[in-house]
Amino acid sequence: MTHPSDPPRVRLKPKSDARGLRHGFPWVYASDLVTDRRTRALLPGTLAVLEDETRAPLGLVAVNPGSKIICRMLDQDPATTVDQAWFAQRIARAQELRARLFPDPYYRLIHAEADGLPGVVIDRFGDTCVVQPNAAWAEACLPDLTAALIAVTGVSHVLKNAGGRTRALEGLDDVSGILNGAAPTAPLAVPMNGATYLADLTGGQKTGLFYDQRPNHAFVARLSEGARVLDVFSHVGGFALAALAGGAASALAVDGSAPALALAEQGAQASGAADRFATRQGDAFAVLGALREEGAVFDVVICDPPAFAPAKPALDAGLRAYERVARLAAPLVAPGGYLGLCSCSHAADLARFRAACNRGIGRAGRSAQLLHTGFAGADHPQLPQLAESGYLKALFYRL
Amino acid sequence: MTHPSDPPRVRLKPKSDARGLRHGFPWVYASDLVTDRRTRALLPGTLAVLEDETRAPLGLVAVNPGSKIICRMLDQDPATTVDQAWFAQRIARAQELRARLFPDPYYRLIHAEADGLPGVVIDRFGDTCVVQPNAAWAEACLPDLTAALIAVTGVSHVLKNAGGRTRALEGLDDVSGILNGAAPTAPLAVPMNGATYLADLTGGQKTGLFYDQRPNHAFVARLSEGARVLDVFSHVGGFALAALAGGAASALAVDGSAPALALAEQGAQASGAADRFATRQGDAFAVLGALREEGAVFDVVICDPPAFAPAKPALDAGLRAYERVARLAAPLVAPGGYLGLCSCSHAADLARFRAACNRGIGRAGRSAQLLHTGFAGADHPQLPQLAESGYLKALFYRL
Repeated sequence: MTHPSDPPRVRLKPKSDARGLRHGFPWVYASDLVTDRRTRALLPGTLAVLEDETRAPLGLVAVNPGSKIICRMLDQDPATTVDQAWFAQRIARAQELRARLFPDPYYRLIHAEADGLPGVVIDRFGDTCVVQPNAAWAEACLPDLTAALIAVTGVSHVLKNAGGRTRALEGLDDVSGILNGAAPTAPLAVPMNGATYLADLTGGQKTGLFYDQRPNHAFVARLSEGARVLDVFSHVGGFALAALAGGAASALAVDGSAPALALAEQGAQASGAADRFATRQGDAFAVLGALREEGAVFDVVICDPPAFAPAKPALDAGLRAYERVARLAAPLVAPGGYLGLCSCSHAADLARFRAACNRGIGRAGRSAQLLHTGFAGADHPQLPQLAESGYLKALFYRL
Repeated sequence: MTHPSDPPRVRLKPKSDARGLRHGFPWVYASDLVTDRRTRALLPGTLAVLEDETRAPLGLVAVNPGSKIICRMLDQDPATTVDQAWFAQRIARAQELRARLFPDPYYRLIHAEADGLPGVVIDRFGDTCVVQPNAAWAEACLPDLTAALIAVTGVSHVLKNAGGRTRALEGLDDVSGILNGAAPTAPLAVPMNGATYLADLTGGQKTGLFYDQRPNHAFVARLSEGARVLDVFSHVGGFALAALAGGAASALAVDGSAPALALAEQGAQASGAADRFATRQGDAFAVLGALREEGAVFDVVICDPPAFAPAKPALDAGLRAYERVARLAAPLVAPGGYLGLCSCSHAADLARFRAACNRGIGRAGRSAQLLHTGFAGADHPQLPQLAESGYLKALFYRL
C-alpha cells in the first residue's frame, strides 16, 4: 500500500493520554479521538498522522472509524513511509529475538502489537510462513509485508490465514489463500522439545500448531521420565509428544477432533514413540469420567482446554468449567504424581484461574503443592502496558 | 523429639475454617484457636492434636502460643508419631521431585510448608546439606530430622544455619553449627546451567547460594550468546556466570559485597570464563549512574536487588526503589537489547512490581516488549492456598 504523501490527520481530545502513546501504548480508543465527519469517513485501515490536542504530531496510525480501538500506532515518526523496507526492519528485529531463543526456525515470528505490527500474527514453520492479517491496514499492505517477509527470512512459501475472529470487526473477509509459493501438500514436520509434531497449515485450527505452550511442554517433559501420561484436550499431541520425548513410559491423548488425533498419531510415529502412544476420541469431560470408572491412574495428567472464558460475560461459567476440569482430573493422578492445568482465557486472570483449580483439586479430596506457573513462550511477547491481558496460564501441581 | 503417647489437645473456635485445614491449609491463626490457660502454657514447638469445635481431631500440629501462627499442621493423622521414619518419608517424597527436575544433587530439597515440614528449609550441595530449622518444633526434632536426612540422601555433612529471621519469633537462638560430619574448609563448587558457582556455606548470606533464580538464570543464558552482560546486585555471580556459560562476550558483576564478588571471580575461573568476567564493587545505584556517565552500553542488563519491600509498611518506598532501578538500568541497554528486573519482595505482588518497572522504563524514555515472567524454580514449591505470597518475580524485557 502506498499512502498519500500528505496523509489525513486525526486528533486526540484534550486530556487524552498522549504520554502513554509516546511511551509505547499502542491504541487510541474511540472515546479519546475527535471523531468529526472527516474522520468518520476514513476507510478502515487508512494511515493517518495522529496529533495531540495542540496539533503536535504523535506518530503514524492506522485508523478504523468503526472500531472501539479507533487508532493503532504504527510508528512514532509521523513522516514514516510504510513500505517494504519498513516491514523488513520490524520483521528483522523480531527474527533476531527468535533466532536467539530457538535452534530451529519454528516459532511465532510476529506477535502483533508487541512486535510493532498491530493486528498481524506470523508463524514460521521452516521454509513456510503463515500470515494472519487481522487488521484492515495490514490487509491493505499485504504485498509489501509479504515481500519483506521473504526478503528477511528467505522462506519460499507464504500462506494467508483469514480465520481470525477479529477480521470481521475490521470489515475483512475470511478467505485464506497463498501469498507466495505453494501450499504444502502434506502436514509439515515441526521439531520442538525433542519431539516431532505434524502441523496441518491449511486444514487445522488457527495456524495448525500452537507454539505458545512450548515452555510448558518442556516443563512436563522434565517430569515425565518413566511416567504414565494423560494429555486431555491434546489437539495434535502438544504435551503428550513432549512427554514421550522426555522418556514417558506411555502417553494417552484425548481430544474431540479425529483429525487432530490423527496428526498426533503421525507425530508419535515421526518421534519414534508410536509404541508408547495411544489416543481416545471423545468429549473430554466424558472421557475423564470414564477413565475414573475404569480405575485408570496416571503419573502425569495435563488438561489444556479451549478458552472457557474468552471474554468477561463468560467468566463465571468459565471458572466453573476450569474447576470442573480440575475436579475430574485430580482423581486420575497417582499419589505423588503431577497435574498440569492450563487456561487460554483472556478474561480469567491468574489469581482467579488458580483459585478455580485449587477449588477443584480440593473438591476431589486431594491436597497439592504448586510447583510452577508458566505463561506463553517468549516468542509471544507482550506490551508491558497490556501485560494484564496475557491469556495463557499453566499451573503445575504435585498431588 | 519423642512426643508423649497422649499429646495435649487444642481446639478451634466455632466457625473457624476446619475445611481449609482438611484440604491442606497449613496454619491456624491465634484468633481461631481456643487459647485457654492450658494452651497458653504449652512450650513453643509442643506437638498437639488439633480438634474442631465438635472435638473431632483434625490432625497433629506444632503449637507456639506466642506466635500469630499458633498452630502449624504436621500431619492430618492425629495419631502420627513424629520420628525418624516420619521425616524420612517426607524427605524421600521431596527428593523424588528434585531428582526428576535436576541432573545433579544441587537444589532446595525441603521448602518448608509446601514440602510438609513447616518452617524447615534444607538446601543440598552435593555431599552436604544445610538445614534451617526456623520453627521451634523443628529445632526440638533436629536429631530425628538429621538422621532421616542422612538415611534418605546419603550425604556426609549436615550443617545447621540459624540465621533465619523468624527464629527469634519462635524463641530460638541464632547459633549455627554442625549436625553431622564437618563444615567445608573451602567454598563448594555448585554446577548450574552449565556454569560452576562457588558457595560459602558457613560465611555467606543465608545458605551461601540462592537456588531460586535458576530458571531465570537459564532464560538469560539463552539471550546471551555474544552479548555484553551487566549483572547488578550480582551476589556470587548468579546471572553473570550463567550468561558466560551461554556464550556471553563479556560479563560485569556489580555488588556491594567484596566477599561475594571474590566468590563470583572464583566461579568465573571454575567455569573457564575468567577472561570474559569483571567485577565492580560499590553501591549499585551509584555504579549504575557512573556507568551511564562513562557511556557504557550492554546488550543484556539484569538487576536482582535485595527485597526493597519485604513487608507491607515498606511497600510504597520499595516500589519507588524498583522504579528507580529500572529507570537507571534502562539507559544502559543497547537498542534491541534485554533488561531483566527481579524482585524478591513478598509485599510487592506481580502487578505492582511490573507497574513500577514499566514506569521506570518509561521515565528513561524507552519503550519495551515484555518477553517473559519468571518465578522461583520448581524446587521451591508453594502451597496453592498461599501462592499469592510467592516472593520471587523476574521480568524480562526487550527495549
